Amino acid sequence: MKYLVVPDSFKGTLTSAEACETIKENIIGTDPSASVACIHVADGGEGSVDAFLGISGGNKVKISVSGPFFDKTDGFYGLTDGGRTAVIEMAACAGLPLAGDRKDPLKTTTYGVGEMIIDAATRGAKKIIMCLGGSATNDGGCGAAAACGVRFYDRSGKMFIPTGGTLSDIAKIEAREIDGRLAGIEFEAMCDVDNPLCGPDGAARVFAPQKGADEKAVGILDSGLKHLASIISRDLGKDILHIAGAGAAGGMGGGAVAFFGAELKPGIETVLDFAGFDSIINGTDYVITGEGCTDGQSLRGKVVCGVAKRARKAGIPVIVISGSACDDETEDAYGMGVTAVFTINRKAEDFGISAPKSRTNLAYTVRNIIRLLNSRG
Amino acid sequence: MKYLVVPDSFKGTLTSAEACETIKENIIGTDPSASVACIHVADGGEGSVDAFLGISGGNKVKISVSGPFFDKTDGFYGLTDGGRTAVIEMAACAGLPLAGDRKDPLKTTTYGVGEMIIDAATRGAKKIIMCLGGSATNDGGCGAAAACGVRFYDRSGKMFIPTGGTLSDIAKIEAREIDGRLAGIEFEAMCDVDNPLCGPDGAARVFAPQKGADEKAVGILDSGLKHLASIISRDLGKDILHIAGAGAAGGMGGGAVAFFGAELKPGIETVLDFAGFDSIINGTDYVITGEGCTDGQSLRGKVVCGVAKRARKAGIPVIVISGSACDDETEDAYGMGVTAVFTINRKAEDFGISAPKSRTNLAYTVRNIIRLLNSRG
Repeated sequence: MKYLVVPDSFKGTLTSAEACETIKENIIGTDPSASVACIHVADGGEGSVDAFLGISGGNKVKISVSGPFFDKTDGFYGLTDGGRTAVIEMAACAGLPLAGDRKDPLKTTTYGVGEMIIDAATRGAKKIIMCLGGSATNDGGCGAAAACGVRFYDRSGKMFIPTGGTLSDIAKIEAREIDGRLAGIEFEAMCDVDNPLCGPDGAARVFAPQKGADEKAVGILDSGLKHLASIISRDLGKDILHIAGAGAAGGMGGGAVAFFGAELKPGIETVLDFAGFDSIINGTDYVITGEGCTDGQSLRGKVVCGVAKRARKAGIPVIVISGSACDDETEDAYGMGVTAVFTINRKAEDFGISAPKSRTNLAYTVRNIIRLLNSRG
Repeated sequence: MKYLVVPDSFKGTLTSAEACETIKENIIGTDPSASVACIHVADGGEGSVDAFLGISGGNKVKISVSGPFFDKTDGFYGLTDGGRTAVIEMAACAGLPLAGDRKDPLKTTTYGVGEMIIDAATRGAKKIIMCLGGSATNDGGCGAAAACGVRFYDRSGKMFIPTGGTLSDIAKIEAREIDGRLAGIEFEAMCDVDNPLCGPDGAARVFAPQKGADEKAVGILDSGLKHLASIISRDLGKDILHIAGAGAAGGMGGGAVAFFGAELKPGIETVLDFAGFDSIINGTDYVITGEGCTDGQSLRGKVVCGVAKRARKAGIPVIVISGSACDDETEDAYGMGVTAVFTINRKAEDFGISAPKSRTNLAYTVRNIIRLLNSRG
């Protein structure tokens, strides 16, 4: 039997890598003749670099770059795929935890992200995967763009590096001077939200409050992003007002498209493409995925759904193993390619009691599923 | 696909019949082409008659007989298998609930059980299944025997009907006069405990306290049963001191053997034999059983274990669906014939919250198992 294991994290208990390891170990422990391929899944947030390195090897490049307040920070990114692909977690230099108790999306910058991009390009990366998630910023990616040579001018013609609070000061953008080292590099941005750049569902209104913005600041940020979009439209000829996902990571989704020509993709699609899922799946008997909670949310572009849709195309059954199943919300999952959903709760216990046993419970669940699958002639 | 469904009750939430119905309904609901045979399981306690009637049809005979205190009680037993087999629940005339707040195993009798036996014999039953369980008595089956013509004499030569408190008064037993209507009838006693008649693990010490006996009464009952065994040995030539299960139902296990020539059998064996399990299982793809809690106890002669052992002989995989699995205690189950154990807890919830949802949780669990089984070519 050949299995392909692609679990999401079990939120609050197991990372995707831990779930992978537990599932693989217990498949083999039950059926030593089984062959098991694993794909660690990243969601664009913390741990994404590790997930990519887990898929294709490589190493972490440690680099001193600008932090959220232009202060020097020890950052890192991943070089994988034989150095051809760089994976950059925004969170590593512009993440909310780095802002500490000074959270202020009016002032924070993605400048460090641009510095990492330049570094990766210098080292010869031909593809850069930007992981949008967990940011402390709302600068529409202007900081990252500035670090790569895009020039922003105010009404007096003075060049400056816009932050969330100064987006409305932008009078002109010049992208001609974008760093020559970026020529020919393919950009992809992992983006698991479909929020637009601005408006009621935009970056500022939905995400800025958790980054420290009060009502007034939200207003400034939102109109700043709108202004940015209009200048981009005029000076770069790109419309980012109507792109789903442009509002990800404080407008970094829009900036990635406008300044870097990035393709915005659901994180799971990026990971599955990178891992070569569509070819690995050939000859697989079962795909096993999983997550902390299988509910209506699971069916909207996240890991389980992304995996199921592709497996369905290949005609391979998909087993979902979950910490919790809201069965009345997930009837549609079957139509999307999910074959069966099993839960790991081996006893009727509150999450507080079962959570520390997640790994053991997952192990027993896997063992019994494999026993069942092996029982047929 | 052909399924054979034989669940135990899910203690505290679903009866065996309810579990059967839920499992069957959801197999068919998921795979309308499936064929499903069900066996309701009885454990010898309350509901056993219904379980047998569920297997082979028939009806309940309502009959006024002696209750635990020789008072008239509305009892019943089952006539099934075309009237050839009678199923008698001791609990229907000698059950603990019938004793109300007068619980006293020194005084209670199984006389009504004997009256039912006579009635069933009169109606032509050729086999009588006695369900030992839930009794208020500790009379070693002497009451039932007396009702069927066995004579008990005290030291003064006076005939009497012994109860728990007067077992030691028995000086002589005559079984020659046992009712002629019982000739040729096969007796089987369902017995799920292996306690001996007396001693530290005997009927009185282990079970009499819950029937209302204090320490002194336990002593009287225990020595009474020992005395009974010695008289039976001398007058009837049968040794019931060393029979596992003789201590069931206040010594009724021993009395069934001594007075009626009954075979003591684990309840599940009686049920499976009666239902023709060994022939029904031919051509079955999967046996599905289940119980409230799968732990070390499950492996000691109860439903799941009994079903698994027989299925194993036939080479058919056995799926156990449980409310709770103590996986560290049940490794041996696999060797006994259990293929896989799935639990029904679809969320990490305390039993207090999940118990009322048992039926729904069981339903979803079954549906997903069937979906998985159908996913293979």
